[in-house]
Amino acid sequence: MAVRFELLKESSECNARLGKLYTPHGVIETPIFMPVGTRATVKAMTPEEVKDLGAQIILSNTYHLYLKPGHKLIEEAGGLHKFMNWDKPILTDSGGFQVFSLGKLRKISEEGVEFRSHIDGSKHFISPEKSIEIQNSLGSDIMMALDECTPYPSDYEYTKESLERTTRWAKRCKEYHKDWDRQALFGIVQGGMYKDLREQSIKEITDLDLPGYAIGGLSVGEPKELYRDMLSFTAPKLPKNKARYLMGVGSPDYLFDAVISGIDMADCVLPTRIARNGTVLTSHGKLVIKNAEYKRDFGKLDPECDCYTCKNYSRAYIRHLFNVDEILAARLATIHNLYFLIKLMENIRTAIKEDRLLEYREQFYKKYGYI
Amino acid sequence: MAVRFELLKESSECNARLGKLYTPHGVIETPIFMPVGTRATVKAMTPEEVKDLGAQIILSNTYHLYLKPGHKLIEEAGGLHKFMNWDKPILTDSGGFQVFSLGKLRKISEEGVEFRSHIDGSKHFISPEKSIEIQNSLGSDIMMALDECTPYPSDYEYTKESLERTTRWAKRCKEYHKDWDRQALFGIVQGGMYKDLREQSIKEITDLDLPGYAIGGLSVGEPKELYRDMLSFTAPKLPKNKARYLMGVGSPDYLFDAVISGIDMADCVLPTRIARNGTVLTSHGKLVIKNAEYKRDFGKLDPECDCYTCKNYSRAYIRHLFNVDEILAARLATIHNLYFLIKLMENIRTAIKEDRLLEYREQFYKKYGYI
Ligand SMILES: [Zn+2]
Ligand SMILES: [Zn+2]
Repeated sequence: MAVRFELLKESSECNARLGKLYTPHGVIETPIFMPVGTRATVKAMTPEEVKDLGAQIILSNTYHLYLKPGHKLIEEAGGLHKFMNWDKPILTDSGGFQVFSLGKLRKISEEGVEFRSHIDGSKHFISPEKSIEIQNSLGSDIMMALDECTPYPSDYEYTKESLERTTRWAKRCKEYHKDWDRQALFGIVQGGMYKDLREQSIKEITDLDLPGYAIGGLSVGEPKELYRDMLSFTAPKLPKNKARYLMGVGSPDYLFDAVISGIDMADCVLPTRIARNGTVLTSHGKLVIKNAEYKRDFGKLDPECDCYTCKNYSRAYIRHLFNVDEILAARLATIHNLYFLIKLMENIRTAIKEDRLLEYREQFYKKYGYI
Repeated sequence: MAVRFELLKESSECNARLGKLYTPHGVIETPIFMPVGTRATVKAMTPEEVKDLGAQIILSNTYHLYLKPGHKLIEEAGGLHKFMNWDKPILTDSGGFQVFSLGKLRKISEEGVEFRSHIDGSKHFISPEKSIEIQNSLGSDIMMALDECTPYPSDYEYTKESLERTTRWAKRCKEYHKDWDRQALFGIVQGGMYKDLREQSIKEITDLDLPGYAIGGLSVGEPKELYRDMLSFTAPKLPKNKARYLMGVGSPDYLFDAVISGIDMADCVLPTRIARNGTVLTSHGKLVIKNAEYKRDFGKLDPECDCYTCKNYSRAYIRHLFNVDEILAARLATIHNLYFLIKLMENIRTAIKEDRLLEYREQFYKKYGYI
């Protein structure tokens, strides 16, 4: 099996861990944050820039690539790595999340999901097999099994029914996939906000003996305390010798919670999306660069940051670029935000190594303004 | 005087010439094409990228910077070079062209031009002295004197009146400017499509003994033959030992005409503007990358180009990026188009050196599809 997780160290303070994830396109040090390249590009960035920031793996979206330009076209191009000029690992989601959140008039059945494209209303059907077929064409290092991300709130009955279908779909994904040397498949644990259902899902999904498991259906609108409770309940129950991936988490506090619960990988569009709207993450909290107070501020976005943006440009200049709608504005803010999270995870890895993660969190939170 | 032109060679075939332009921020090899950084950024590009393409000087627009973020703010930031992180030469226009083309309700008088901002309708007044004051704040290496770019067509009377006012304004600019070691001032020859008026303007403007002269009021909508006729009449009459700059020219044929008439510098928003709309210049002519025929074309934008874009991405990928409105689309097309023109000028310089410019033009035109 081409994708394999190696556990290097467990924290003495909490469930945090250090590891290495081996993939056909390179080794990833965990815990890690994965930038999102929705449509075969991390928005506003070149692959070289993403790499220079220290990113080790990116995520791309099966749903979007299936609709445009189409997975067959990408296969003809030689796969997603070659198409987008990215030679490091890629993880693709199953398409399920976007089908459920963006697709119109979706109809879910045992067979799969029928939906209409959010772009042109055309009718499509994605089954577990189809999701793998698409991801096989894309050639990602890590594929995700088709699941239903149970919405919040959902009642017990529906959540149970949904997670059991997700298990059956995961089995079909595993059966359909052939070339395990080229691509791995991760399963997804569901179960909503019900601990016994989370346990049931963990049991069923980990029985499939896959190289990694994701936790889905968290950070979907539930209160933060519930998120933390479900996360700290679920993550440590996943097998220690497999990679653990928490989907859709990208704010510093959620990332700390994830790592402390034993998560190895996380992704989110947050840092790149808010960057394009002019919000940047700094060691002293978020900053809306368009605000008038930065008009004559010739300092860095973040005085403690040494990213390309902070080394070369002032707040006043970046504010000007946003004010006149220049593309460089989105570029500079994206570089900074991605660097901020990648650097945060690097610091987190060092802190785990030195058994001082909880202390580092406290320092970070105080400065950031969380506490 | 900080800015000085050195004539290195005159072509034996035509009026083309090779030269060096010395400025406080470096030496420029001429003839040259100058990318435009309207609002203190070459759209979609970082300064490093612009430099890597081989650009030696950029142009920035006084009118736009005066309105946003304001020249005083840029002065506080340490000048335009520092503000935008560009350490090579900068040429700024006088603001006149945009006042006349973008400003609303403009009123021209001997004193200057009153106009309303195209952004918020606020009232402003730019005189020759004000234009220099603004450009002094920006700190460009080369400033342009305030002129009126006579529209096409204009009658003889108005053209004469306008060019004489332009002369008087140029004198006032020269008188107002103080620090000639830091910044040079170029004058602008007007005279519309009347040869005797062009001669009159050349006489009056070159009497000011400035380090360089521009030809204004060409490529403003007149037929191509008239452009070529006026250009080949005017350019060779400018002093040989001073830089000659043709404003607003950026298509390959217009650039060839300019160089062959003895022009040293040209600028245009064309390559960057059409790039953002998905049109690229190639050795085989223009190409609209969005067209369906490129959907499965996995070749380079231009098979003969070795720019970053052509080395790493296919037409199919770039078409996809334009199709889904990704920022990287504008970036990759801009890189290619700027490189194309910068490389063209490099080839032109080599051809002048080797006395085979007319032959090179014929080869280029045949391949490009002009003939
Ligand atoms: Zn930074
Ligand atoms: Zn190219």
